Amino acid sequence: LQRRKERATKGLFLAEGVRVAEELARAPLDLHFAVVSPTLEDAPRGRALLALLHKRTRVHQVTDLALRRLAATEQPQGVLVVARVPIATLAQIPVEMVCRVLICDAVQDPGNLGTLIRSADAFGLAGVVVLPGSVDVWNAKVVRAAAGSSFHLPIIGTTLEELAAWLRRHDFQTWGAAAAGEPYRPAQTPARVALVVGNEGAGLRPETQTLIDRTVRIEMPGRAESLNVGVAASILMYLLSERSA
Amino acid sequence: LQRRKERATKGLFLAEGVRVAEELARAPLDLHFAVVSPTLEDAPRGRALLALLHKRTRVHQVTDLALRRLAATEQPQGVLVVARVPIATLAQIPVEMVCRVLICDAVQDPGNLGTLIRSADAFGLAGVVVLPGSVDVWNAKVVRAAAGSSFHLPIIGTTLEELAAWLRRHDFQTWGAAAAGEPYRPAQTPARVALVVGNEGAGLRPETQTLIDRTVRIEMPGRAESLNVGVAASILMYLLSERSA
Repeated sequence: LQRRKERATKGLFLAEGVRVAEELARAPLDLHFAVVSPTLEDAPRGRALLALLHKRTRVHQVTDLALRRLAATEQPQGVLVVARVPIATLAQIPVEMVCRVLICDAVQDPGNLGTLIRSADAFGLAGVVVLPGSVDVWNAKVVRAAAGSSFHLPIIGTTLEELAAWLRRHDFQTWGAAAAGEPYRPAQTPARVALVVGNEGAGLRPETQTLIDRTVRIEMPGRAESLNVGVAASILMYLLSERSA
Repeated sequence: LQRRKERATKGLFLAEGVRVAEELARAPLDLHFAVVSPTLEDAPRGRALLALLHKRTRVHQVTDLALRRLAATEQPQGVLVVARVPIATLAQIPVEMVCRVLICDAVQDPGNLGTLIRSADAFGLAGVVVLPGSVDVWNAKVVRAAAGSSFHLPIIGTTLEELAAWLRRHDFQTWGAAAAGEPYRPAQTPARVALVVGNEGAGLRPETQTLIDRTVRIEMPGRAESLNVGVAASILMYLLSERSA
């Protein structure tokens, strides 16, 4: 079991829970094997997933306790799948006339990064770019929080330099989400926007500031100083998706 | 130390981390004591907090290791405060002509519940009602994720029956957030709205459905089936706060 966890760091990743495993089994990714326990067969949805997994990969049966020990998240729901990390590059982002991408700069909470990927998928963004200093996108907790969205759009790890060149080449306007920014105004939205979100506590790194054309914020009539980073970026992605409809 | 944790279940709660402790020290709540470790004094912000805590309550100095053992969250940042839970009732919600409240029905992830409280505060909601089956609002992980907003607005635990009577008396329209609802349309927003969000997996409980006048959803042009519950409710609270501005 330990060896399997190790392998997950060698170009492989762990997908845990019924919903994430379903999405993975339907995605065109290279599955290595699945591990299931009796819990999975308690519900019809779990039994359907098991049948699907048998068609797609090797399935190992273990006890519920053994599966929980192997799992990296708290409620694996009787299933985990080991698969190959899909390596994506900036060239794989489909850059249409109207295009929005999300850039994560030093986002460190796995739940926040997973939520950002899920919202980017929900609002039809063309891709997610993850800069150095962020938690690993293929960490099992990130994959779990992304609820299957990790397999729906290109997720790219790259350097600031490569990203800056790509953004310039494709004529993106780059927006930083920051509590000190201008309030978001729909009328000012250009065709191609790259939205950059920073660290939960420290915000955007100084070197990342060099990318930013303008900073925007969500208007908040209440008392809280700021929003959760996943919430703030999701509201901006929602507003941007409205403008591109 | 163990006894202190026990006490936290007896009408007391734990607030951990610099930002949450700052907000708590500035709130008109009954602090019992604080526990700090050398880490807190590494930064000017921590030293300012320490001075403030000394004015407000008894402060115990322990080692970093002892503080981490005592803490319920992963990064207590050298400070935890034990305080009395502020008991609030529905009567404490200020019901203005235009009024929005959030109702949490069986929300089980501490991070999600904390994020919901933080967004409710940010968007100026009048209060948060938490129905049975949700995680404890004063759980240290919820308080941490709420980033100080737990001390800014009334948070009320009550039954479905009492809540239903209160909503009727004050002429609220009750909206359920659900992926199968109607798309949100700003023009249909009444003066008083109670927004109900349900469990991460199962949605609203059948008994809670009886409260609901209509269900609404966020339009999503992308592929994800649904949004994180904290994100979906935060977008609706944002849109509702725009309409009341």
